[in-house]
Amino acid sequence: MARGKTEAKKPDKKKEAKRERQLSQFVDTCRVKPGKKFRLADHDPAWAGDPARPKEERKAFAQKLLSEDVSELAEAQELLYAADSWSVLLIFQAMDAAGKDSTIRHVMSGVNPQGCQVYSFKHPSAEELDHNFLWRCMKALPERGRIGIFNRSYYEEVLIVRVHPELLKSQRIPGAAPSKELWRARYEDINHFEQHLARNGTAILKFFLNVSKDEQKKRFLERIDNAEKHWKFSASDCAERDHWDDYMQAYEKMLAATSTDWAPWYIIPADRKWVSRAMVANILTRAIRGLDLKYPTPTPEAIKRLKEARRKLMSE
Amino acid sequence: MARGKTEAKKPDKKKEAKRERQLSQFVDTCRVKPGKKFRLADHDPAWAGDPARPKEERKAFAQKLLSEDVSELAEAQELLYAADSWSVLLIFQAMDAAGKDSTIRHVMSGVNPQGCQVYSFKHPSAEELDHNFLWRCMKALPERGRIGIFNRSYYEEVLIVRVHPELLKSQRIPGAAPSKELWRARYEDINHFEQHLARNGTAILKFFLNVSKDEQKKRFLERIDNAEKHWKFSASDCAERDHWDDYMQAYEKMLAATSTDWAPWYIIPADRKWVSRAMVANILTRAIRGLDLKYPTPTPEAIKRLKEARRKLMSE
Repeated sequence: MARGKTEAKKPDKKKEAKRERQLSQFVDTCRVKPGKKFRLADHDPAWAGDPARPKEERKAFAQKLLSEDVSELAEAQELLYAADSWSVLLIFQAMDAAGKDSTIRHVMSGVNPQGCQVYSFKHPSAEELDHNFLWRCMKALPERGRIGIFNRSYYEEVLIVRVHPELLKSQRIPGAAPSKELWRARYEDINHFEQHLARNGTAILKFFLNVSKDEQKKRFLERIDNAEKHWKFSASDCAERDHWDDYMQAYEKMLAATSTDWAPWYIIPADRKWVSRAMVANILTRAIRGLDLKYPTPTPEAIKRLKEARRKLMSE
Repeated sequence: MARGKTEAKKPDKKKEAKRERQLSQFVDTCRVKPGKKFRLADHDPAWAGDPARPKEERKAFAQKLLSEDVSELAEAQELLYAADSWSVLLIFQAMDAAGKDSTIRHVMSGVNPQGCQVYSFKHPSAEELDHNFLWRCMKALPERGRIGIFNRSYYEEVLIVRVHPELLKSQRIPGAAPSKELWRARYEDINHFEQHLARNGTAILKFFLNVSKDEQKKRFLERIDNAEKHWKFSASDCAERDHWDDYMQAYEKMLAATSTDWAPWYIIPADRKWVSRAMVANILTRAIRGLDLKYPTPTPEAIKRLKEARRKLMSE
């Protein structure tokens, strides 16, 4: 009977392995390859699996994947915490309404908040403007054993500042003027900074949630028409939408220049929230699995101390 | 009569100009040149000016120079604060009893503490060890318009940690082992970090106070024999002295690898305190002078507002 059971399960396992392979391949196509030609236009924001298969089936698969990965993540984070060697840094960048907040909420829902810190970077303060542009994010880096999430980041310095170069003036950097050379130097500073973090035990994953202009319009209208979502909308969001093409250019250049072996960018199709959530969760669990974490093995001395403690407790 | 006066002063001015030229030349020989062969042994800790001239004369000259530079520094710092574009970072590294504390005290004695922050980096805390090795110093960087002083710094990471590689273990960096490659990567991270700061408006000067082993012994004995100096002495200082040659090797390698155009190292002869103080003050004032700072010129609009404010006040 046991044998029969195994045989009955076989086809499912094969199917799962095939899907895992396909998923692996797709994750790989989402990663921006350092030094290779990269065009944002080659990445479809509306991608949602193989269109030959029924949408409901695909959606159910993505949801199953998400829930499995969320469970795995909760366990993986405990191990990360116990091993106390690596930290994990996730960076999210996107246009407004691309789903950064909700992706973070859904993907991290199973995780112990003690081991996870989310920082949302808004307009820089006067104190922050008085420092080098990496400073405010440097301060917020995750400790060893923890997951740190940057909801926006120092990448704004080559995105919004590039689209609105007048912002550079407010940084009062001696001799700084918006030029190709300045953006190149900023890319280089960012790559060097992330290399330093990677060398010192921070695993870095960067996600660009790739939403289309049409989908953004739809989501903005929802925010305007739905009283519960009003708080999420500000008129300035619409003003930034007017610079859509400039932003796409700035994103394309930034993604090509700052995706490295030690801190890769992933382009996440974001027109379907069930797609982007499943993708981010899957990439993150794969990456943590790749760290090959282990619970610390106690030294012979530590084992001796544990035994002594047990003896003391039992004799009370 | 006016003419006579000028003529009487001439020889002094000539003499001063000559001294300034000589001083300039000596400052230049103290700077470690990037990419050139560098031997610490070529730098004499006991250097104290031209031995052909009487010591009292040299000492008096150094003290005059120090007091002039301290005055200039006080003015320069106000300008630095008003211009609000550059920040200045001074890094001091040395063996114990080389005079870091007293140099900082004497050189910065005229400066407004509101525009100047000194950070002394001791043994890293648990929270600090849980981050990348640059983190605790990053947090303490000076704001635009200010002078920041690091009394010891991230350079300890390639000095004490190199001499005592067991310290590396306590940093729990995955895969890190003391090797040539690790120190090379640390030098590179440091150079990149300082390049980022320099690009973003921080002028960086680094001073190695070069004290001899004999002079250290003398100063330690003074600390031991003088009740008022007891607090400055700890037995662990003597323990580090046992590793003198290892430290000198680590310093030599570090100085050669991390003196850059954007953040040069200066080797300051430190066996005579009157020499090291005058040298540091002089190098610092020269550097700030080189920033070519100006009080901000108000815009026509700002001038209009100033005039309006005056009118309003006068009509009270």
